[in-house]
Amino acid sequence: MVNVGIIGCGYWGAKHVRIFNTLPDARLTIVCDQDKEKLNQVREQYPYVARTSDYRDLFSDSVDALVIATPVSTHYNFAREALLHGKHVLAEKPLTASNKEAVELVKLAKKQNRVLMVGHTFIYHPAVDYLRQLIQSGELGEILYIDTARLNLGLIRPDVNVIWDLAPHDISIILYILDKEPISVRASGAAHFDPTVHDVAYLELKFDKEVLAHIHVSWLDPCKVRRVTIVGSRKMAVYNDISDSEKIRIYDKGINIPTDNDNFAGWPPRYRFGDVLIPFISNAEPLKMEGSEFVRCVIEGKNPKSDGWAGLRVVNILETAQRSLMNGGGHQKLRTLLPDSVPVSATPGGR
Amino acid sequence: MVNVGIIGCGYWGAKHVRIFNTLPDARLTIVCDQDKEKLNQVREQYPYVARTSDYRDLFSDSVDALVIATPVSTHYNFAREALLHGKHVLAEKPLTASNKEAVELVKLAKKQNRVLMVGHTFIYHPAVDYLRQLIQSGELGEILYIDTARLNLGLIRPDVNVIWDLAPHDISIILYILDKEPISVRASGAAHFDPTVHDVAYLELKFDKEVLAHIHVSWLDPCKVRRVTIVGSRKMAVYNDISDSEKIRIYDKGINIPTDNDNFAGWPPRYRFGDVLIPFISNAEPLKMEGSEFVRCVIEGKNPKSDGWAGLRVVNILETAQRSLMNGGGHQKLRTLLPDSVPVSATPGGR
Amino acid sequence: MVNVGIIGCGYWGAKHVRIFNTLPDARLTIVCDQDKEKLNQVREQYPYVARTSDYRDLFSDSVDALVIATPVSTHYNFAREALLHGKHVLAEKPLTASNKEAVELVKLAKKQNRVLMVGHTFIYHPAVDYLRQLIQSGELGEILYIDTARLNLGLIRPDVNVIWDLAPHDISIILYILDKEPISVRASGAAHFDPTVHDVAYLELKFDKEVLAHIHVSWLDPCKVRRVTIVGSRKMAVYNDISDSEKIRIYDKGINIPTDNDNFAGWPPRYRFGDVLIPFISNAEPLKMEGSEFVRCVIEGKNPKSDGWAGLRVVNILETAQRSLMNGGGHQKLRTLLPDSVPVSATPGGR
Amino acid sequence: MVNVGIIGCGYWGAKHVRIFNTLPDARLTIVCDQDKEKLNQVREQYPYVARTSDYRDLFSDSVDALVIATPVSTHYNFAREALLHGKHVLAEKPLTASNKEAVELVKLAKKQNRVLMVGHTFIYHPAVDYLRQLIQSGELGEILYIDTARLNLGLIRPDVNVIWDLAPHDISIILYILDKEPISVRASGAAHFDPTVHDVAYLELKFDKEVLAHIHVSWLDPCKVRRVTIVGSRKMAVYNDISDSEKIRIYDKGINIPTDNDNFAGWPPRYRFGDVLIPFISNAEPLKMEGSEFVRCVIEGKNPKSDGWAGLRVVNILETAQRSLMNGGGHQKLRTLLPDSVPVSATPGGR
Repeated sequence: MVNVGIIGCGYWGAKHVRIFNTLPDARLTIVCDQDKEKLNQVREQYPYVARTSDYRDLFSDSVDALVIATPVSTHYNFAREALLHGKHVLAEKPLTASNKEAVELVKLAKKQNRVLMVGHTFIYHPAVDYLRQLIQSGELGEILYIDTARLNLGLIRPDVNVIWDLAPHDISIILYILDKEPISVRASGAAHFDPTVHDVAYLELKFDKEVLAHIHVSWLDPCKVRRVTIVGSRKMAVYNDISDSEKIRIYDKGINIPTDNDNFAGWPPRYRFGDVLIPFISNAEPLKMEGSEFVRCVIEGKNPKSDGWAGLRVVNILETAQRSLMNGGGHQKLRTLLPDSVPVSATPGGR
Repeated sequence: MVNVGIIGCGYWGAKHVRIFNTLPDARLTIVCDQDKEKLNQVREQYPYVARTSDYRDLFSDSVDALVIATPVSTHYNFAREALLHGKHVLAEKPLTASNKEAVELVKLAKKQNRVLMVGHTFIYHPAVDYLRQLIQSGELGEILYIDTARLNLGLIRPDVNVIWDLAPHDISIILYILDKEPISVRASGAAHFDPTVHDVAYLELKFDKEVLAHIHVSWLDPCKVRRVTIVGSRKMAVYNDISDSEKIRIYDKGINIPTDNDNFAGWPPRYRFGDVLIPFISNAEPLKMEGSEFVRCVIEGKNPKSDGWAGLRVVNILETAQRSLMNGGGHQKLRTLLPDSVPVSATPGGR
Repeated sequence: MVNVGIIGCGYWGAKHVRIFNTLPDARLTIVCDQDKEKLNQVREQYPYVARTSDYRDLFSDSVDALVIATPVSTHYNFAREALLHGKHVLAEKPLTASNKEAVELVKLAKKQNRVLMVGHTFIYHPAVDYLRQLIQSGELGEILYIDTARLNLGLIRPDVNVIWDLAPHDISIILYILDKEPISVRASGAAHFDPTVHDVAYLELKFDKEVLAHIHVSWLDPCKVRRVTIVGSRKMAVYNDISDSEKIRIYDKGINIPTDNDNFAGWPPRYRFGDVLIPFISNAEPLKMEGSEFVRCVIEGKNPKSDGWAGLRVVNILETAQRSLMNGGGHQKLRTLLPDSVPVSATPGGR
Repeated sequence: MVNVGIIGCGYWGAKHVRIFNTLPDARLTIVCDQDKEKLNQVREQYPYVARTSDYRDLFSDSVDALVIATPVSTHYNFAREALLHGKHVLAEKPLTASNKEAVELVKLAKKQNRVLMVGHTFIYHPAVDYLRQLIQSGELGEILYIDTARLNLGLIRPDVNVIWDLAPHDISIILYILDKEPISVRASGAAHFDPTVHDVAYLELKFDKEVLAHIHVSWLDPCKVRRVTIVGSRKMAVYNDISDSEKIRIYDKGINIPTDNDNFAGWPPRYRFGDVLIPFISNAEPLKMEGSEFVRCVIEGKNPKSDGWAGLRVVNILETAQRSLMNGGGHQKLRTLLPDSVPVSATPGGR
């Protein structure tokens, strides 16, 4: 049984409160928020959970593991202090507000021998797992490009721009399903309401061999869209997270370019049109799967799928995208994550 | 009555053959193609139209105006020669393969006092006209950004990349409905089949005041998409050209940011959700409207909506986008179109 | 403050438990179910609510009003006993298993001067209210016909057939928005799994002047459908309850038949095609609106929109439809609801 | 080479003119219409086709086979006279205006040894063929019910009601894919514009073993719908003819009812949810397939899929549905098609 404390009872925190109350191997013992009203709401539904407005109460012996669901800028301090107190940590995404902070947390967790996990919820989504297997099985062929869109009207935030708010979802999905490291990233966008906070942005990740991934995030779109299109050389897939029952469509279509040696090889290409398959996808709740993974890893001493490394990789991309955003939108090389001299686990990720 | 000749009877040329056979004030007198088979197809349906494989036959007195529907690289030569022979010219989009060529054609048409028109078909689409009026009436408020997608599986071309093939549609639509000149453009993409021919690309046009337009074009997508999303400060509109009967949706939704002077001004923003309107749009055929405009301008000596200037503006953007594509994808300033010293019409566009 | 007791904590009962815990003027004091497990679930979430497996405990002084959410066949006995004990009653739909039972309850409630309400939830749906106003305002013109479909795979029930299970929704919606009494009803269908329990059925209500309403209900359809199409002489409307944000579409289209006196009057008809409007509809929860109406009527001594009369009308139609179903599917006249001699309120419905 | 004449150049006739001009083994020699304008239109496109306003010109030696695309009430006379002149006949659907007429034509064609075919276009649709094979292969399991809808705003006709106009499509599809004879039929509807011409109608065909098919046809619906839903005991299929590229969806879902002998056998049923498959369907034009079948059967002396028998079966159902429509909407037994004493081919249909 893992005793869990939660800092922050806002949008995501409230969800964690509900989840950790249902996990068989976890016991939510205490929650912390500055807002009395939010604590009252927790009391009404879960009267047996302790409440505090002083986060230091979560470092007591009655807590084994901490969930941090506060604004991004505070993740580092809370996580650092928690690790120093020997607590396991699950921080909401993005892991930290900078590469430097993320590197330190990864090192610290390693040193303290504690679980450091980031809440990349979507990689616990059955549909995303399905996509990863689809790619790894070779059914899609060689992956040519990925195009994602995460759009909606609303939830403009004062503290981070739309890239830091929404793109962690898409970046973590892309890294997870492709299982590759990007070489460079670029970003551009516009800030219509607050000149320092971009509300619409376009990112691009370049991988080797002409593989690219394009990400569109926006707080200002008339339609709610959460879509990932994967174009492979053999088949193509679209993951539409908005659909209740038809999240994934696999299109058996593509282009066949003959590779004969004669003079006219390769032209014109032939198009292939076949069936569309909409596989049945379990409707298991991703956030619950994520919570279970955290609890399991704490108990078994394992590394979660979305460990500190995974969080660091995403933060590294976000930080580099931000640099591109500020500098004309050209591609920026991604820097190496950790100096060689630092002894970290050679095999990040528990998968 | 305008006597019309058509060079090139391929995909677009065949459409022009059909259109110019139905226009009341035009008479299609002769068509030209290198491919005998294509000429035979014309003969079967329109036995009274002359046929030739020598384009110089179109410069005879029996032709007043020429439609050029050949590969882009040949537009300049055909158009130049036609203008020199005193013919009016309608060239398919893009107008030319380079800025330099387009500038020369614009100047030559001016000097010869002939109509030079480019086939920006979509600006003759009733839905696009509707969007332009919607914007100009102020109903959408201030335009914040435009996002377009033109995707499909197929029609990979050997001669031009996907930017030159598909983006002229979107660029001409954006320029027409916004009625503004962009300041800079960027592009990136990937070339999966022929390393010199990009098959997927993303462009971005920056206008003043944080207005941007993003264009996604692809020959490699599982779904056919032709969509323009316009986000205004008061309302938002989506133009879905794939839909038969519901091409435009106007969303009465947006974000209200208070502008009071007190300390808490502007935060949090308030979201507004209202009705959606799907206006009835005439199903007039854009290519026929375009043909009529050409004939009318020839007869009346007017400047068409999509005149040489409009064609030049699009080519200028394409050429600059290409430069960005080749140089890391950063924004590139758009150069001024014509040197000041050249005396051209001060009011381009006949609208 | 109205003290409420709930009999039956199944699918609908559990929802009522939640709702009546949130209504400001109601206090849920006690719930009753035969199933210990269900009572435990209530205790976990609402420890302060009393629990019993003996329904007679709900007739104590601590209960003013009863919600009956048990199988249809038991409604009559529970409602009757509750009214005799002076309790107000809200029974789930359909009100009773027979016309005769419903008539008795209506009379009894009248005699006891207590509120008798039936849970026709959909008439508390903002979208249904919108439709009613649309019709009453004359915007749709004369109503020509209504077509509804309520389909899904699942929830086959052992006690009642699909007509008694699903059609009360559609019948109550139709009566509410048309505000007319049907003259006859017919039904047919098929019973594939249990020969005595129809799992797919088609009903038709005939009103005066060629107005008809057709209802399709099915437990055996691949797609979840909840749709009401209203065809008026001026406009048409579709209510799609499955859609999250676009529940109602109003089509400004129709047929104009000239009514001149000359010989060719009326032919050919002219078709009119105009805009489509998707009005913004509040997402207030219908069941909560229904609960509020019950509480308000108990406090103020008013008649609810879905009073016993409304319940009786629906049961009368169901019973007659059942007779048609058993007798070849022809139209059956609807019998008059109450003998003249019975003194009941002349103005049913509190609206 | 079959020489073909066409009577009637209206909506369907014009399509046949186009089709028979493209079939390799047919030559369209002459067309007939009362409307000079329509003949002129034919001349413009097909100057080599003879034109007449006297249908008797089609009985000359230059015509082997006749296509009848005139109003239903005239089919019988034209077809009878043509058969008597030794011509093969393809008549538009429905074959005739009455059972009696259809029986006579079937007998006459038999006697004259000529092909008598009815234009049940949809049974030549690749999607309908796919459905038939799907059912016959057993993949859907036992067929439980079929529900169809053919709705639109428009094309109200003065001569026949919506049942005779639209239902032949659905009836011919249902008979073709089920390959069963119905036992009874019912119909009801409403006539809003002309009291003798129903504009919306609902039909039901009952087959043995609780199999039923329900047909909704309407000239008065805001949305264009052409849908066939087939519910099988193992899988379910939906054929949506409006969709360009996704005409058929096969749902691997259903209800498993255990059939054990113990007390609780059969309850509760278990629901099964699996993949959805959208098979690739060729976009061959059904009317062209139909024309080819006619030509092939004339040349080879074969019986077409939609022979006179097939036409008669549909007319029989229409006539009986009409009787139900006029008599309260109850089920009417379908009478036996031909008296035993008449010697006709024992194996109708060339399949």
